[in-house]
Amino acid sequence: MIKEKKIIQNGHLGIVQEQAFTFDALKLESGEKFGPVTLAYETYGVLNKERSNAILITHALSGDAHAAGVHAGQDNPGWWDEFIGPGKAFDTDRYFIICSNVLGGCKGSTGPSSINPKTGKPYALDFPLITINDIVNAQKNLIDHLGIEKLLSVVGGSMGGQQVLSWLVNYPGSLRSAVPIATTIKHSPQQIAFNEVGRQSIMADSHWKSGNYYDGAAPTKGLAVARMIGHITYMSDKSMAEKFGRAKKDAGEPFKFTADFEVEGYLRYRGDNFVKRFDANSYLYITKAMDNFDATAKRPLQEILQGSSVKVLVISFKSDWLYPAYQSKEIVKACKLAEVETTYCEIDSTYGHDAFLLEVQEESHLIKHFLKKVFYAYEVTGEYGA
Amino acid sequence: MIKEKKIIQNGHLGIVQEQAFTFDALKLESGEKFGPVTLAYETYGVLNKERSNAILITHALSGDAHAAGVHAGQDNPGWWDEFIGPGKAFDTDRYFIICSNVLGGCKGSTGPSSINPKTGKPYALDFPLITINDIVNAQKNLIDHLGIEKLLSVVGGSMGGQQVLSWLVNYPGSLRSAVPIATTIKHSPQQIAFNEVGRQSIMADSHWKSGNYYDGAAPTKGLAVARMIGHITYMSDKSMAEKFGRAKKDAGEPFKFTADFEVEGYLRYRGDNFVKRFDANSYLYITKAMDNFDATAKRPLQEILQGSSVKVLVISFKSDWLYPAYQSKEIVKACKLAEVETTYCEIDSTYGHDAFLLEVQEESHLIKHFLKKVFYAYEVTGEYGA
Repeated sequence: MIKEKKIIQNGHLGIVQEQAFTFDALKLESGEKFGPVTLAYETYGVLNKERSNAILITHALSGDAHAAGVHAGQDNPGWWDEFIGPGKAFDTDRYFIICSNVLGGCKGSTGPSSINPKTGKPYALDFPLITINDIVNAQKNLIDHLGIEKLLSVVGGSMGGQQVLSWLVNYPGSLRSAVPIATTIKHSPQQIAFNEVGRQSIMADSHWKSGNYYDGAAPTKGLAVARMIGHITYMSDKSMAEKFGRAKKDAGEPFKFTADFEVEGYLRYRGDNFVKRFDANSYLYITKAMDNFDATAKRPLQEILQGSSVKVLVISFKSDWLYPAYQSKEIVKACKLAEVETTYCEIDSTYGHDAFLLEVQEESHLIKHFLKKVFYAYEVTGEYGA
Repeated sequence: MIKEKKIIQNGHLGIVQEQAFTFDALKLESGEKFGPVTLAYETYGVLNKERSNAILITHALSGDAHAAGVHAGQDNPGWWDEFIGPGKAFDTDRYFIICSNVLGGCKGSTGPSSINPKTGKPYALDFPLITINDIVNAQKNLIDHLGIEKLLSVVGGSMGGQQVLSWLVNYPGSLRSAVPIATTIKHSPQQIAFNEVGRQSIMADSHWKSGNYYDGAAPTKGLAVARMIGHITYMSDKSMAEKFGRAKKDAGEPFKFTADFEVEGYLRYRGDNFVKRFDANSYLYITKAMDNFDATAKRPLQEILQGSSVKVLVISFKSDWLYPAYQSKEIVKACKLAEVETTYCEIDSTYGHDAFLLEVQEESHLIKHFLKKVFYAYEVTGEYGA
């Protein structure tokens, strides 16, 4: 750990590096065998000798493997940088943190924009329809590859939380604890509807061309609109009112439908930025996986979890209307009915769904103490493996 | 009234006819003089000798002058048919009802798709930016033309409610009562944001061509997405769950991003239907007028209303998250501070914003008794004119 600490400055991780793991094939839920599959991933901290301190962090719709630290020569820290590092919620002095870009993504993992080895061209819509369980099965291969038999925890918010639930359902013997944050057992029709409108917006863009846009202009306008819709749902009425009010922008170009209000300028900015870093087809595949996910598809969750020794911490946020607290309470209820040791906290935030990225202090506190309890319970009893 | 009653069957209005009123010019809020202006309108019931029973109904974003009855040879009743007719909330045996399509609209009134007499071509973006006050000033010309000095009431929901507030602020001497429903003094950034994303979606459509699409294909895909976003905001999480759940559609075409869920099929259907009857540029102009509206732009509402004898009924709906009850309460508060006689009711509905079109029974009851009280107070005191 001494070497690791050298690159740490002011509690930050410093320079981190992306890695990649490739395996031959994955059997998808659909029955199809798909491969090869590459997963981009990053790790922070050091895996202990007992291999008992590994935590998998799962990212949300637009996230990637770069959860913390900075890449050499770049400024932007990872998407959960404030939570990961020495002394932070995910204390890299103590734990070994893993984050991988999801299957179907566009940030280093195999997805619709990857080259199909059979054709030498991007998969586009020849990429198979994938599920959250497929995403998690691919992650399991990575965890096996890293030689980790049992994860200390799997933690994620939003779509990351769906992955946490998939781990709980499919690999209960491979984890000691799970932290699903601002998530749901299955999408409501309202959640499906917002995703569907985003997909429609992408497919309405004349540059989309049934997904075959990789040798020309991308459907950036449609994708930007999809992202703007997303951003509205990630904030709350109150947080928007506090951030923007009805403040007007400085007079722009002499055009009738310019961005008059600051909130309009903000949305356009976020939309335009997003299209530089995200693939439209990935957006289609990943949102569809989210919509199709149902942790109770085969059996009620309380039945599946019965007899599990996994400890669960469920977190929701008061002003989150995209993944409302009642959905988190459904998870808690199923865990309690299964007699799984479960803690629930609804954090009193005005940030809306974005809160899982922004409520650093209270969320860190909850996670930090939960992880400590799970880790030291393990250390004391000395139990090992599955 | 006997002749009117002949066409009434089972409490319905029967066949109604659209009319048109054209005037030379309107001075817009911007200072610009714009004309000629045509307003399409319909009337139901008979104006009494005293001209004291006239009620103006103002429509929402996608509404039109056809509020009740059916057009000859067509099946579809007006958008508020269940509220307007003999014995209904707006009792046509008692009152004379007027509804006009807004300035800037595309259903018979002058709007961006109308022919610019100077060029012989549709205005497109040469149509001036209009405001809710401009829309109301145009309506005032129609009301003057009909020889009505004082309206018994002005009633409308959503954007219709914004028009009601504009009447209250600009023509308090021309009305006896006002019923703003599910509306707001001014749009919040969240409301602006949803409209803005709809506009972005239209303008992102390659067929939009800066508004000059009237001689070719219209930006129907962009407009359909805008409408789908709208529909999500018009319903509630609960009403969507009750209506659709996670029910799947029958297997459709073999395409990965087909409408799997019923809610997706519903949105696509509503989007596709809308583009057949609505002009994309009108959508831009009207939503911009909604966003820019601020009843308190010049002075606080309680100052403006001070000393007014207008009676006000404010209605909101519990599950309406697009125009939440707190916005209606702001109207009530301003009215009360101005010592205006005000009644407020929050109807316990799960329909979301759509409730103002759907909660027929309770809403009718409130409106019916409110109008009776205002009308008979007038009849008894015999007061007249301004």
